[in-house]
Amino acid sequence: MIQLLQTGILNESLIQIEWEDYTESVAAIHRHLEGANSEMTGWLNSPIENNIEMVKSIQRIANEIKIAADVLVVIGVGGSFLGAKAIQDALTPYFGDCTNGIEVIYVGQNMSGAYIRQLLNSLEHKEVYVNVISKSGKTMEPALAFRVFRQYMEKRYGDEAYNRIIVTTDAENGLLNKIAKKTGYRQFVIPANIGGRYSVLTPVGLLPVAVAGVDIEKLLEGAKKAATVLKNENLEQNEAYRYAVIRQALYKNGYKIELLASFEPCLAKLHEWWKQLFGESEGKDKKGLFPASVSYSTDLHAIGQFIQDGSPIVFETLLHFKEILFDYQVPFDDQNDDHLNYLANQSFNNINAISKQGTALAHADGGVPIIQLELERLDAYHLGYLIYFFMKACAMSAYLLQVNPFDQPGVEAYKKKMLQLLQIDNFKNEYGVGM
Amino acid sequence: MIQLLQTGILNESLIQIEWEDYTESVAAIHRHLEGANSEMTGWLNSPIENNIEMVKSIQRIANEIKIAADVLVVIGVGGSFLGAKAIQDALTPYFGDCTNGIEVIYVGQNMSGAYIRQLLNSLEHKEVYVNVISKSGKTMEPALAFRVFRQYMEKRYGDEAYNRIIVTTDAENGLLNKIAKKTGYRQFVIPANIGGRYSVLTPVGLLPVAVAGVDIEKLLEGAKKAATVLKNENLEQNEAYRYAVIRQALYKNGYKIELLASFEPCLAKLHEWWKQLFGESEGKDKKGLFPASVSYSTDLHAIGQFIQDGSPIVFETLLHFKEILFDYQVPFDDQNDDHLNYLANQSFNNINAISKQGTALAHADGGVPIIQLELERLDAYHLGYLIYFFMKACAMSAYLLQVNPFDQPGVEAYKKKMLQLLQIDNFKNEYGVGM
Repeated sequence: MIQLLQTGILNESLIQIEWEDYTESVAAIHRHLEGANSEMTGWLNSPIENNIEMVKSIQRIANEIKIAADVLVVIGVGGSFLGAKAIQDALTPYFGDCTNGIEVIYVGQNMSGAYIRQLLNSLEHKEVYVNVISKSGKTMEPALAFRVFRQYMEKRYGDEAYNRIIVTTDAENGLLNKIAKKTGYRQFVIPANIGGRYSVLTPVGLLPVAVAGVDIEKLLEGAKKAATVLKNENLEQNEAYRYAVIRQALYKNGYKIELLASFEPCLAKLHEWWKQLFGESEGKDKKGLFPASVSYSTDLHAIGQFIQDGSPIVFETLLHFKEILFDYQVPFDDQNDDHLNYLANQSFNNINAISKQGTALAHADGGVPIIQLELERLDAYHLGYLIYFFMKACAMSAYLLQVNPFDQPGVEAYKKKMLQLLQIDNFKNEYGVGM
Repeated sequence: MIQLLQTGILNESLIQIEWEDYTESVAAIHRHLEGANSEMTGWLNSPIENNIEMVKSIQRIANEIKIAADVLVVIGVGGSFLGAKAIQDALTPYFGDCTNGIEVIYVGQNMSGAYIRQLLNSLEHKEVYVNVISKSGKTMEPALAFRVFRQYMEKRYGDEAYNRIIVTTDAENGLLNKIAKKTGYRQFVIPANIGGRYSVLTPVGLLPVAVAGVDIEKLLEGAKKAATVLKNENLEQNEAYRYAVIRQALYKNGYKIELLASFEPCLAKLHEWWKQLFGESEGKDKKGLFPASVSYSTDLHAIGQFIQDGSPIVFETLLHFKEILFDYQVPFDDQNDDHLNYLANQSFNNINAISKQGTALAHADGGVPIIQLELERLDAYHLGYLIYFFMKACAMSAYLLQVNPFDQPGVEAYKKKMLQLLQIDNFKNEYGVGM
């Protein structure tokens, strides 16, 4: 399914991986992960489990929304935002409407007053549904955005508002669950044993992308295939674990930055999802590869110079989908003013694929280790496969690094500081000291 | 104008900068840069020079386009794309139409067949102008896109097409200049002594953003102010040089990644422009800070964990505009289900500013060196100032690193490999070997 190309890569002179050194630890981590006592690993088997009922009820509500609304406003941040946005961008058109879905817009992923005001203004002539996604309901950005949109919907739709707000949250705990129960909002569940950055294949990601027109059955089918294929403790046969080991070996050899590169601009948000997945899973105890990304060929004309010739601390993971559904042919030109007739009747996607080969060769020449991940086609099935592949590889990577893939103590530091400042500040305001 | 905040930053325990060690070399580089013999430094004085005629003619054509067209398609890559897009995104609304401008869409910055096809389809019911930007006319991506759009415009507008295509290129040399002269396209000049990544304040960036509704006089006024203020060889008094020295000192102390962070999502593309500027200027001879970026608070819930606790190779440059034109107030809620009434009547932008303080404190606690750049207001004037500030700081930075800020030998490596592959490939096709 996914092919981890080995040719011309990881220029053997740069690094020699002692695979046999990893065999045992990989198998041990595998058994721990897949074992009955592992925690926060609900995502591991969820695509294999029977989820027909969940899928049907998501599709039912998605269809209702597509008929009744022009736009779905999704409120979420981090794992409740990045995954859905990644899939939506990857599988819906660059320009023009998606024939199978409606517009999906995100809010509550930032705290820009301008963003909220302009979004609200733009909704004036559109019918709106809201999907608020938060496990606890306590994260500041989405909580504030939900306060705004709850009032907006109630003002606009009156008694009907409760029917136009769908809540995705914990089944039993948390403030958002409490609000949903009290008001009678329809509710989807974020399983307690799945953390934010591993939740994209739950209703967290599935409802928004279904509304955007993505075939979620195919998406889950691809993930199921990956969950099956990658349930193999044998390092030689498990591409996700091989990817994890290569990353770890490069890290140990002084490469500090992994640069995820792809050649289709609609994958830019997938990079952002990937950055959270790996950055938040590995970046602790003063360890971890710094996850960065580029969209080629655009960024070959930007950061390309650095990759080729700059500080030798970067390795590159080239992500390539061999087939892209839409394409365009370079036209023939009588005048040939631009001297490009030698490319006439070639397809852009073919030329783009060749630019990928050129990049790999040039950067390998420049001494950059290169990992190549190749998939057949950019569609829901293969994207589902890839997402699962990355999650499995990430859990293995973090354990190889001897950190916990499923916590994020560092995120709390900022939240705490901010709350302190807000409360002091609020205090000042109440007593007229002002801001 | 720009304030390089020093409080709570660069936690003194982490690094001590020996400013006096840099005084002389900074002054020497300054004199070289500003000297009569420096090359590719046309951008240094262009905002100070009399450019009324250029501005007027850009405004004249921008007005013509705004009246006659619904959309301007801009063809360019690298420096002929990133700067305009950065300014456009920073100064036009997130949602809804810009009252002072029309839609500006970019193409030729990638080679996606899907992107081109879907863009063409979406133009069907819109009136179109094209602005093609390339110094040489030989860069593959924009050259191919121009071939497509030239034919499209000729098919659609017949004899009128030549009037709807505006060319921005070298005054005398290059393929695009030749095509423009032959066909009689109206032409703006990219000065020969200004390289791509330093060209945003020439017609390269000015025409697209003027069409998008940006006040280019204010933009240039800000740049002019910066050009004046920063023409000071005294390190103590020159904020751009101080920024360059801090970067260099951190680099020498083992920090390998500079993370540019801002708190208004519309600045994301400014980060991309900044990455090209610094990455392409410094990333050579196996040297240079790796330029990365984040959009907070969104990315505090993604890469934030890594910054706080991960590999200690990152320093952070927090870019903050104190005033944002549009804002929204947190509403009061009778029920207070979410317990957020303590923030009622606060503005989102204020809360966002506090999240910036919280971030600085938390990351400083985490041992991350922090540089804070602060500007009064997010508007054309201050953005013009900031752009010039970064360009001046970048030239100084590269020279401190003893590399040439104005070449990009590494970009050629990829272009060469790709051309070889295309020509072989083409050969195969001609003889039926196929791809």
